[in-house]
Amino acid sequence: MAVQTVASSTDISLGPAVALSCRECGERFPLGPVFACEACFGPLEIAYELPAGDPEGLRRRIEAGPNSIWRYAPLLPVPADVADKPNMNPGFTRLVKADNLARELGVTGGLYVKDDSGNPTHSFKDRVVAIAVEAARAFGFTTLSCSSTGNLAGAVGAAAARAGLRSCVFIPHDLEQGKVVMAAVYGGDLVGIEGTYDDVNRFCSELIGDPAGEGWGFVNVNLRPYYAEGSKTLAYEICEQLGWRLPDQLVIPIASGSQLTKIDKGLRELIALGLVEDRPYRIFGAQAEGCSPVSRAFKEGHDVVRPVRPDTIAKSLAIGNPADGPYVLDIARRTGGAVEDVNDEQVVEAIKLLARTEGVFAETAGGVTVGVTKKLIEQGVLDPSLTTVVLNTGDGLKTLDAVAPTTGPSAIIRPNLDSFREAGLA
Amino acid sequence: MAVQTVASSTDISLGPAVALSCRECGERFPLGPVFACEACFGPLEIAYELPAGDPEGLRRRIEAGPNSIWRYAPLLPVPADVADKPNMNPGFTRLVKADNLARELGVTGGLYVKDDSGNPTHSFKDRVVAIAVEAARAFGFTTLSCSSTGNLAGAVGAAAARAGLRSCVFIPHDLEQGKVVMAAVYGGDLVGIEGTYDDVNRFCSELIGDPAGEGWGFVNVNLRPYYAEGSKTLAYEICEQLGWRLPDQLVIPIASGSQLTKIDKGLRELIALGLVEDRPYRIFGAQAEGCSPVSRAFKEGHDVVRPVRPDTIAKSLAIGNPADGPYVLDIARRTGGAVEDVNDEQVVEAIKLLARTEGVFAETAGGVTVGVTKKLIEQGVLDPSLTTVVLNTGDGLKTLDAVAPTTGPSAIIRPNLDSFREAGLA
Repeated sequence: MAVQTVASSTDISLGPAVALSCRECGERFPLGPVFACEACFGPLEIAYELPAGDPEGLRRRIEAGPNSIWRYAPLLPVPADVADKPNMNPGFTRLVKADNLARELGVTGGLYVKDDSGNPTHSFKDRVVAIAVEAARAFGFTTLSCSSTGNLAGAVGAAAARAGLRSCVFIPHDLEQGKVVMAAVYGGDLVGIEGTYDDVNRFCSELIGDPAGEGWGFVNVNLRPYYAEGSKTLAYEICEQLGWRLPDQLVIPIASGSQLTKIDKGLRELIALGLVEDRPYRIFGAQAEGCSPVSRAFKEGHDVVRPVRPDTIAKSLAIGNPADGPYVLDIARRTGGAVEDVNDEQVVEAIKLLARTEGVFAETAGGVTVGVTKKLIEQGVLDPSLTTVVLNTGDGLKTLDAVAPTTGPSAIIRPNLDSFREAGLA
Repeated sequence: MAVQTVASSTDISLGPAVALSCRECGERFPLGPVFACEACFGPLEIAYELPAGDPEGLRRRIEAGPNSIWRYAPLLPVPADVADKPNMNPGFTRLVKADNLARELGVTGGLYVKDDSGNPTHSFKDRVVAIAVEAARAFGFTTLSCSSTGNLAGAVGAAAARAGLRSCVFIPHDLEQGKVVMAAVYGGDLVGIEGTYDDVNRFCSELIGDPAGEGWGFVNVNLRPYYAEGSKTLAYEICEQLGWRLPDQLVIPIASGSQLTKIDKGLRELIALGLVEDRPYRIFGAQAEGCSPVSRAFKEGHDVVRPVRPDTIAKSLAIGNPADGPYVLDIARRTGGAVEDVNDEQVVEAIKLLARTEGVFAETAGGVTVGVTKKLIEQGVLDPSLTTVVLNTGDGLKTLDAVAPTTGPSAIIRPNLDSFREAGLA
C-alpha cells in the first residue's frame, strides 16, 4: 500500500488518539494516513487513551462545550483546540421526540428521531468530514478529496472551503445536475469521470499511489480511520440528549456499515467511561431491499456478506459490497438486534409517514430506517415498549425525486370561495 | 375587518405579551387574532411586560434554556411551557465567524454570517411559524394556513404536522414541481390557485372573512402580529452568540420589511433589559435590484415606498409592495444605516463567494445580503473596521436554479492518471 506521510508521526497531536490498531489482528501502528494493516491487510481504526476515572468531571466539561461535535473533543481524534479552527462545526442536531409517529407505530416506550438533516450541508457526512479535516491538517495535506455520488461531495467541498484547503472531488460524469451543482458550488475542483462509481473509486485508489496525488487526503480512503470516528458523535449526542442514558434500541442505516459500527463503539466508550449506566442495548441495521447484502446475510445466518449490484432509490445507501458488513452482523447478533430491509415503495411511504407525523422531511436513507422500524415492530422483533432511536442521516431536499411522483396539491381551484367550497376542503 | 375570536381574550396566556398595540396611533387591544387597528387601520404589534430589573438572572435563565428560540421564551408571546409542546424547536442556528470572507471583502472588525439554513425546514420561516403555532393554539384554531410561494409553505406544513394541527396552504398553481413537493410532503392540504401570488393573497383575505375559514389561523394574516415577533429571536441569538454584545452593523434582507423591523425591536429590548450595553448600531437593508422599492425610496430620500412589479431571481424577497417599507426607512435613517440593492448577476456571484469562502450555500436572499455588504463596503458606506453581521435566511438547495447555469465540473476525464494529468488539476 502506497502512502505519503507528509508529517512524521511524532508531530501528530490528535487529542486522545494514540495509535492505529488493526481491527482483525490487533497490530498497532503510529498515527498516519494509512488505512490497512501491514501485517494482515485488515482495516485500521483509532486506538485511544480516553479520559477515564472522573465521569462527573468529564460530563460537566462536555456540557460546557460548544453546541457541536467539538463538545466531545476529549473522545475524538482531534486536537484539543479544534473548536477554535475554521471548520463547519457540525453536530448536536435535534433529537426529535416523535410522539405522533410513536402513536402510529404503536411504540409506547418512547420513540426518537435523530435528525441529522440539521447539519451544515444537511447530512451526517459533515461529522465524519470534520474529523478528516483535522487529520488532513495534522498530516500536512493541502488538498481534500473523495469519490462521491452526493452527500459526501458537498460535505467535503464545504469543509475544505472553510478550512482553507483545496478540494478536488471525483464523481461519475453523468450525475443529475442538482447534485453536480451542490458539489461544485463551494468552488473546489470537481472532476467528472467517464465511468461508473466503481470506476471513480478505482481511479482514486490509483491516484493515492501516484505522485499526482501527493499531499492529498482522501477522506474515505487514506483518512478513513479518522473520518469514520466522526460517527461516534451520533452515539454521544443521542445518550446526552436522552439525559446521559442509553436507548434500549437503535435503528441505523447501513451503507458501508461504518456508521453502525462506530455508533456501537461510541456507546461502549460511554459505558466504559461511566458516562452512562451499563445496560443492554440492541442495534438494528436498515437496508433498502434493492441493496440488502447485509440483511440477506443476517437472515441466512451467514458471517460473510455476498456483494450485490445495487438497484434502489436509496442511493446514499447503495453500496453493494459494504466493507463493514461482517462487523455489522457481529454487532446485530451480539446486541440481540437484527438487520432488515424494505422495498422502495415502503421507503417512500415511510418518508411521507415521518413528514406528516413529525414535520421531518428525510432523505431516502431516513425512509429506510423509519420503514424498517415499522416492519420490525410488525414482525415483533423490535419491542415497542422500549425506548427507541431511529436515525435520519440526510435531507429530503436532496432526494426530491423519490417522493415527487406521488406528492402534489390536494386541489387546484380558481381564486374564489365557490371554487374552494366545491373542492371540499373547508 | 372580520375576525373570529375563538377563545376569549381572558383565556389567553402568551407569556409576557399583554396586548396588541397599533404601530401608528398607539391604541391598545386585547390579545386576539386581529392584525389591524380598529381606529386607524394601522398594523398591530405585540406589547409586552418584559422581565426587567434582573439582567444577570435573566441572562442565566436564557443560557440554561434549550438550544432553540425557546431559550428566549420570557421575551416572546408564547406560554412559559412552550418548550414542552410538540413544535419544530427552530433557531439557535450557527453564527459563522467568516474570516475568509472578511479577508476577501477587506473587513477587519469581525465579520459574521448568521446562517438560518440550519433551521428544521432550512429557512428563518421556522422561527416565525413556531410563534404563530402557539398563537393558533391559544386562540383555539385547528387549521394553520398561509399563502406562499416557497419557504413559508414548507415551514407551515411541517410545523402543523408536528403540532397536530391541520394545515391548508395556498400557492399559485404553476409553481415548480420541487417547491410543490416540499410544500405537500408534510401531508397537509395544499391548494393550487389558478392565478398569481396576488390572487392567492386576495383569496386568503376573503377566506378569513368567510364561514369556510372559521377556525383557521393564517400565519401571515390574522396571526401576523404574533408570527412577526419570531424574527426578534435573530437579534437575541446574534447578541448572545457575540457574548451578549451588540454588533456594530447588521445587513438584513428586505421582503415585507418585517424581519428587519423586528430585529431592531429585539435589539432595543435587549438594551432596555440591560442584557447588552447600550451603544449605537447601524442597520442596513438589502434588496434585489429587480424588486427594490425600499432601496429606491431610501436613495431618493422619500418616506413613502412606491410599489413595483418584481422581476428577480431572489423570489423569497420579491414583494413589490412591502408592508413594513416605511418602518424600514425609519430604522435605516435613525441608526445611520442604509438600504441598497444588487442585480441578479451580483446575487449569483455573492452566493458563490460565500460558498467558496465559508462553505455556506445560501439561498438567493443570502446572495442579496452578501452582495449588498460587498457593495456597501466598496461605496465606503459600511465601515469595514466595525463588527458586522450578515444574515443568510435560507438554503441554496431551494434555489439551485440560480447558480446551476454557471456551476459545474472543472473537468471531465477518463478514469486514468494520464487523462487526469492532461486536465491540469494535479
